[in-house]
Amino acid sequence: MRKYTIGLDFGTNSCRALIVDITDGKEIANYVHPYSSGEAGVITDSNDNNLARQNPADYIEGIEVSINNALKKANDRDVNFSSDLVIGIGVSATSSSVMPIDETGTPIYFKEEFRDNKSAMVWLWKDHTSHNEANEITELAAKIRPQYLAKIGGIYSSEWFWSKILKCSKDDPAVFKSTHSFIEISDWLPAQLAGITDTRKIKHNICAAGHKAMFNKEWNGLPDEEFLIQLSPNLKGLRERLYDEAYSSNTTAGYLSKEWAEKLNLSDKVVVKVGAIDAHMGAVGAGIKTGTLIKILGTSTCDIMIQPNDKPIADIPGVAGIVDGSVMNGYFGIEAGQPAVGDIFLWYVNNHVPEKYGNSVDEKFKNLESDAAELKPGQSGLLALDWNNGNRSTLVDVRLTGLILGQTLHTQPHEIYRALIEATAFGALRIIDRIEKYGVEITDVINCGGLAVKNELLMQIYADILGRPMMVSRSEHTPALGATIFASVTPGDSTGGYPDLVSAQSKMTGIGKTYLPNPENKKVYAELYELYKQLYDGFGIRNNNISMHNIMKHLLEIRDSVK
Amino acid sequence: MRKYTIGLDFGTNSCRALIVDITDGKEIANYVHPYSSGEAGVITDSNDNNLARQNPADYIEGIEVSINNALKKANDRDVNFSSDLVIGIGVSATSSSVMPIDETGTPIYFKEEFRDNKSAMVWLWKDHTSHNEANEITELAAKIRPQYLAKIGGIYSSEWFWSKILKCSKDDPAVFKSTHSFIEISDWLPAQLAGITDTRKIKHNICAAGHKAMFNKEWNGLPDEEFLIQLSPNLKGLRERLYDEAYSSNTTAGYLSKEWAEKLNLSDKVVVKVGAIDAHMGAVGAGIKTGTLIKILGTSTCDIMIQPNDKPIADIPGVAGIVDGSVMNGYFGIEAGQPAVGDIFLWYVNNHVPEKYGNSVDEKFKNLESDAAELKPGQSGLLALDWNNGNRSTLVDVRLTGLILGQTLHTQPHEIYRALIEATAFGALRIIDRIEKYGVEITDVINCGGLAVKNELLMQIYADILGRPMMVSRSEHTPALGATIFASVTPGDSTGGYPDLVSAQSKMTGIGKTYLPNPENKKVYAELYELYKQLYDGFGIRNNNISMHNIMKHLLEIRDSVK
Repeated sequence: MRKYTIGLDFGTNSCRALIVDITDGKEIANYVHPYSSGEAGVITDSNDNNLARQNPADYIEGIEVSINNALKKANDRDVNFSSDLVIGIGVSATSSSVMPIDETGTPIYFKEEFRDNKSAMVWLWKDHTSHNEANEITELAAKIRPQYLAKIGGIYSSEWFWSKILKCSKDDPAVFKSTHSFIEISDWLPAQLAGITDTRKIKHNICAAGHKAMFNKEWNGLPDEEFLIQLSPNLKGLRERLYDEAYSSNTTAGYLSKEWAEKLNLSDKVVVKVGAIDAHMGAVGAGIKTGTLIKILGTSTCDIMIQPNDKPIADIPGVAGIVDGSVMNGYFGIEAGQPAVGDIFLWYVNNHVPEKYGNSVDEKFKNLESDAAELKPGQSGLLALDWNNGNRSTLVDVRLTGLILGQTLHTQPHEIYRALIEATAFGALRIIDRIEKYGVEITDVINCGGLAVKNELLMQIYADILGRPMMVSRSEHTPALGATIFASVTPGDSTGGYPDLVSAQSKMTGIGKTYLPNPENKKVYAELYELYKQLYDGFGIRNNNISMHNIMKHLLEIRDSVK
Repeated sequence: MRKYTIGLDFGTNSCRALIVDITDGKEIANYVHPYSSGEAGVITDSNDNNLARQNPADYIEGIEVSINNALKKANDRDVNFSSDLVIGIGVSATSSSVMPIDETGTPIYFKEEFRDNKSAMVWLWKDHTSHNEANEITELAAKIRPQYLAKIGGIYSSEWFWSKILKCSKDDPAVFKSTHSFIEISDWLPAQLAGITDTRKIKHNICAAGHKAMFNKEWNGLPDEEFLIQLSPNLKGLRERLYDEAYSSNTTAGYLSKEWAEKLNLSDKVVVKVGAIDAHMGAVGAGIKTGTLIKILGTSTCDIMIQPNDKPIADIPGVAGIVDGSVMNGYFGIEAGQPAVGDIFLWYVNNHVPEKYGNSVDEKFKNLESDAAELKPGQSGLLALDWNNGNRSTLVDVRLTGLILGQTLHTQPHEIYRALIEATAFGALRIIDRIEKYGVEITDVINCGGLAVKNELLMQIYADILGRPMMVSRSEHTPALGATIFASVTPGDSTGGYPDLVSAQSKMTGIGKTYLPNPENKKVYAELYELYKQLYDGFGIRNNNISMHNIMKHLLEIRDSVK
């Protein structure tokens, strides 16, 4: 008898429900529901580009619409499928996407008085309003708790849990005062599905806790009360209303509530697993194992690795986090990333490409890609930094911006488009260099996420710049697939799932296409990478004295030589 | 009885004939003829962006079409006008725009065998194919003739006379062998009008000779034979076939030939004056005097000043030239410039602005201007270098390229457009700083050229960044007007012209509009200028150790503070 699981993936703009046959990971049905609020699901502020919030009601609506539609599709397409063969639901979500809640886990935003208040909404991962607070946390920790920083790459980010809480406490005392606790949506959503109405009973995921909230067993969980009070007296007493245990996604968060079971026409015996950060779920869905770097290439990029936890692991400066069990039990999870990759291309194509490349964004992308594919490495003379949304790894600095140089009076948009792709690849290589420098060996790279599947030019450039084969995951929806894999692990019960994660993963994942590096391109890119590093360090590192004088000249020489 | 003169201005894309009433400089008629060949008059090479050539036949056609049409307009519009009241023709042209000719002054390009040969055409000022040759000249002069460099700002340019000749001698021995001499079009065109068919009788202008060909009375004219042979044995014997005298545009080049008098229906008593570089003619047309900087703002920019030659003048490093008599007799002419200003905006709007700003280039310019005018200084967070076509002053380096930084995921085209305008203004201020540093006082700035007249936003930004009032010349065609002014100076004859240049100039020129600096904007721009200088020096100066780390952060701080 076949069994099925559902993976829910809460992205930046939409929510996806994926139904798979757990025998082989075959994706039976898939439904995407765009969020209703804001601009593509994001509430922004024209006075503050840093602000990005979400409406929690969008998620609830998303669960119902996406699961019901996916179930309908599954029924239509797979004669074996039936709703009562669904044995579990897994949840993947962005992080830190944090929201203030009351004692029952109800969003403060749902209260009448805060209905128009952005401070009461979900503070989305890419909300950078708290960059000053991130600096305050980094500075205080460097002074009195250096051990906190060692596990998160040395610098606390404005994208993370405590920055957002601290900023909320300053921006809006009324909201803060009405708040019992703050919660990651990757914790809140499983709790909602399981009908948990007591915050003390919610199981928090180690993935977000460890990578974003400085949770670590070495110091008994979250940062200590003294540290938090010194950060701000506002935070006094909050710690004990948060959590002191955190779990990997193997763990059962609960079982589908009666209410949800009815709405979705599923059994209330369906297990709901503890959630995790989308990138980490994606890594599992892409087939992560020791030595394999998983790159999740989307609007932003996450780089995930695992190392067995039976040996200690060095701290890696500028790499966002090393957390025991954050990806899989028994392994350290290592996370790094770039805060804008696809977002840079979207920004560029949406705003800066004239209609001679096409009338729609899709046409423009297509024509830019085919024109850019005609260029040789170095031929445009351009070099760019991929910092339009700051730099996460290896600089951990949101106060950085984009740069492009080498323009002449002949420079064309498809040349800029290619330079932007190259910049993201150089940025990716900088992360690999850093991880390898600290003794973590990278033998393979598996890519997943929208860009890996859709953008062949990008994947070839990545192979040429990273100088190694770029494998692409068979699944186009690895975070949701990862969630289904966790939901398929049901040790010690009779539901028909797998006894452990590794068995589930090996059956349910696979490689699609592989891009091999072109030796000639690799050589030119190695030369360009030296110039990229020079720009990167010159603009990115404090107290350097790197001269830039050679850069434009060297680019022109490369351009002349490849012609 | 009124008198009239004709000014011919040979630009990069077209030729203009302007007819003025010499009493008050009133512009009676004006006709522009776009060149027939190439792309907007410029012959390019898809394999080499540096190449820019012109067809000399386009100029001959241009003379006939533009003068005849201007005369027809003048007859239609001014009842006082009659062709027999025209007393002189002046000629303004781009430089160095150099062409190989035979002993009769006939272009080599007109010979059957070279009809398809780009080496035989006019090597247009903006042809940068000879950048290596420019380096060779600079290096050799630095070694054995440092005095040559002192007068031209320290570095010989690929835009200039000898670079192009040397490159031609290497690229095309056949053309070079058939060549008797090379000539600036500002010398060739008056000679053509005067029907001169012996190269020895052609009067060469001191303006191009001094600024572009290292001609100076201090070393008996052009660079000496030994220097030239050491540069390349190819050049042996050429010097004596060039010229050993050079004249200011007060001088009579000849009188209109019978052939041209017939074609144009003008008297053969019409005086033809020695030509000059368009920018210098423009300076006279804009009302240059001691202490007044004239900025000719077009596709590129020229900055011209004069200082009385009764006192010696310091060499100014990085300023293209100081030549006695090049603008007006009795004064040193000082020339500096930016090799692309309007060209940068054209490049940007033609290639990088989507149709949401309008469907035509004109519409796009209009909407970019009105959107950019809404921005405060610093509000975009952007900073650019205006080096898409290299840097003429103060770095004299064609091997530099454009740069823009500060992009976020929200950056819009009108923000980039404004940043590009600002970059050209910062570049202009860098030149003013350099000139003033060497003791030449600047009390006024008069702007002329297409951008000064058409682009109000640009003029206001220039006033704010340069921190002083920006006056705009009354005439929109100052190079052609300057040519008419010289043609109106007819001392000692009875044609009814002026006895000297200053009298003619004071009657025939005037100021139109004046833009005053906004004190608040001036303050923010002063802060941004410090960052611009840092970028400029960091990328432009050899052996610097300037850190760039503060730049992006400082721009974000300014952005946050002006909001």
